[in-house]
Amino acid sequence: MSRQNHNLVEILCIGTELLLGNIKNGNAQWISKELASIGLPHFRQSVVGDNLEKIQLIVKESSKRCNILIITGGLGPTSDDLTKEAIALTFQEPLLQSKEALIEIKSKFKYSSNPIPECNYKQALFPYSAKIISNPCGTAPGMIWEPIPNFKIITLPGVPMEMKQMWKESVKNWLKENVYNEGIFKSRTLNFSGVSESLLSEKVKDLLTNKNPTVAPYASSSLVKLRITAKAKDNSSAQDLLDPIEKEIMKRVGNYFFGYNEESLAKKIVSLLVDRKETLSTAESCTGGSLGATLTSIPGVSSIFLGGIIAYSNLTKENVLNVQKNLIEKHGAVSSEVVKAMAEGVKKQLSSDWSIAISGIAGPLGGTKDKPVGFVQIGISGPNFIKTIPINFGSHRKRIEIQELSVARALNELRIILINQT
Amino acid sequence: MSRQNHNLVEILCIGTELLLGNIKNGNAQWISKELASIGLPHFRQSVVGDNLEKIQLIVKESSKRCNILIITGGLGPTSDDLTKEAIALTFQEPLLQSKEALIEIKSKFKYSSNPIPECNYKQALFPYSAKIISNPCGTAPGMIWEPIPNFKIITLPGVPMEMKQMWKESVKNWLKENVYNEGIFKSRTLNFSGVSESLLSEKVKDLLTNKNPTVAPYASSSLVKLRITAKAKDNSSAQDLLDPIEKEIMKRVGNYFFGYNEESLAKKIVSLLVDRKETLSTAESCTGGSLGATLTSIPGVSSIFLGGIIAYSNLTKENVLNVQKNLIEKHGAVSSEVVKAMAEGVKKQLSSDWSIAISGIAGPLGGTKDKPVGFVQIGISGPNFIKTIPINFGSHRKRIEIQELSVARALNELRIILINQT
Repeated sequence: MSRQNHNLVEILCIGTELLLGNIKNGNAQWISKELASIGLPHFRQSVVGDNLEKIQLIVKESSKRCNILIITGGLGPTSDDLTKEAIALTFQEPLLQSKEALIEIKSKFKYSSNPIPECNYKQALFPYSAKIISNPCGTAPGMIWEPIPNFKIITLPGVPMEMKQMWKESVKNWLKENVYNEGIFKSRTLNFSGVSESLLSEKVKDLLTNKNPTVAPYASSSLVKLRITAKAKDNSSAQDLLDPIEKEIMKRVGNYFFGYNEESLAKKIVSLLVDRKETLSTAESCTGGSLGATLTSIPGVSSIFLGGIIAYSNLTKENVLNVQKNLIEKHGAVSSEVVKAMAEGVKKQLSSDWSIAISGIAGPLGGTKDKPVGFVQIGISGPNFIKTIPINFGSHRKRIEIQELSVARALNELRIILINQT
Repeated sequence: MSRQNHNLVEILCIGTELLLGNIKNGNAQWISKELASIGLPHFRQSVVGDNLEKIQLIVKESSKRCNILIITGGLGPTSDDLTKEAIALTFQEPLLQSKEALIEIKSKFKYSSNPIPECNYKQALFPYSAKIISNPCGTAPGMIWEPIPNFKIITLPGVPMEMKQMWKESVKNWLKENVYNEGIFKSRTLNFSGVSESLLSEKVKDLLTNKNPTVAPYASSSLVKLRITAKAKDNSSAQDLLDPIEKEIMKRVGNYFFGYNEESLAKKIVSLLVDRKETLSTAESCTGGSLGATLTSIPGVSSIFLGGIIAYSNLTKENVLNVQKNLIEKHGAVSSEVVKAMAEGVKKQLSSDWSIAISGIAGPLGGTKDKPVGFVQIGISGPNFIKTIPINFGSHRKRIEIQELSVARALNELRIILINQT
């Protein structure tokens, strides 16, 4: 692939704090999203520390691979801010004081009673032919510079707020106007529950090799997502590419689908119950409040969620949820009989229309041969409705994972019940 | 600098989702911290997408630059998981089925009623001489492989939980035993609660420029940490460097300190109550179960935590917690009077020694001039003890942040009370 014939973009973030793991690389993520939204994908991200040789080496390498290198970090006033020095050395160009940059930097000290610190003068140094990018929030202007034909460097500060502002006010438009790009990228994410990533992937296997739109699976501990991404000349052509492939996916695995993009299972439950004007309560043992917490993370949940009882001990199950003692003695706290009684108990106590109960063995201790760690019983009760679901998530899982999976599974079960009833 | 004479480490994260900006690169950050903690700094991080040619190119480049390349991502079962294929192609080695890996993968499907999906078999393919890294949580084993002299590749899955577990159980020790390093880095993290990052930093400002040990502040939404890191020839010399600086820090801000390293407020509460042989219950309104969930994330909590009541609606406060209706009408649900009644109500209902109640306005709606979003009341009740604490976390904060801050504050208040009583 020839560097000359493409708009090959790379991102380089400079900062020893990134190599020490002090912070997550939020700048790379933010710029990635921005690039995708204007149809300029990039192919590589790198991080190096505040080190003159290391920066020179990577800039040299990138100049042979890509046409546009977007650099963040190392533009500050201190002695370990070396980005411009390293770039200038790489292409053996001197740094000169830019009048434009100096005026801008001086204006930042207008309200200061102290003189401009000596070290800030360094921030006005740029290669002669660089175009200065104004920094509305800080003292570190950026630049767009083409040291060799077909290779442009864009420098931005590492402070996220400054970088973002400069991107929005200057860089984005410059890229749109000066860098030819072949249309836009448009993505849509389909969220699934109650299915494993491998099973879902198996069913859409042939689609995963599609070129445009592309289809890619992602999994978190309790959800699976398929992201379809189209490249097209404009928004509406992109939608025209996305729609048929979504239809095909839905035909095959639509029964596991619950929502688009940022929609969560909890959000879906809230909107379903709001539509039905019905309320919900919860009775939790092994999840200890996670189900309630997941629901109450959703703004507006108060119109459907009345509350719940965290019945972590058997006595609480008996005294607060009114589960009969002999039921627990006979069947154990993790049993179809007990979650049924928990669900009915909380529904009655809180006078809700629906209720969810969860009881299980989250581990690491407490497992037996019959009921190992990872074994969970879910009970769902509603108007003239009761159902219990036994699940074994597997003893290899961690406590928190079993709790998360139990919550997701319980919400998904209720979702399916509510949908099938409408 | 010759590659042969050093332990030059690089991190490579593979995943198109990183280039699309779907997620922050938390894996790179986490591994960075781990490497620093065992005295193995790294000099470069890279990200490329799920693309066979691009992965080959960067692996080839890295093999000329470094001795250890740590790769995350692309080990899944789907057709866009290409890491091992690309590595094998780079060094022209075939991938063969590893019996060891296959047994491990099969064990993960033990509880599944479906047969093993065809695509999972691919996860058992490795170069002949690779050492398999067991994956306790998922179906993607990793490997340590030396395709050419003095260049080792370590592959780990991209799912953070799996990656971290494999690192802790296998990779970390392997690195310590097999990779020579020049002295060690030893870190100690001091955890603080009830103080802001800026206030804490101000009080130890002069220490933050220390060279050895270094002192660096980190903040999450509800905690502040100071990490002190010493570089020394061995463990005991490192401790000798760490001790005096810790002593100095404690002299200045020790009153906010609650624990070292991974110790959480919840863990601290559990151990304090276990020692006192006392029990705890919770009554939550705006936190909706998060306090219970935070407590029950700790293994062994069942010996002290009896359960709780999520009283999200006023009716639940009245009917289940026995809060008097006129108290709510007169003072409002977010009041000293009501959290007091909630704390006493749940303590009585669940017969616990201690109880925590939280009621507040998590937003985004529901704020008033007197009680804005971010206003929270905490009540703590114990044997012959009752205390309520009003807090305003500020209306600029997000719902989930207010919930998290409330939980942390409540746990910290109880911690201080318990400690002052001993």
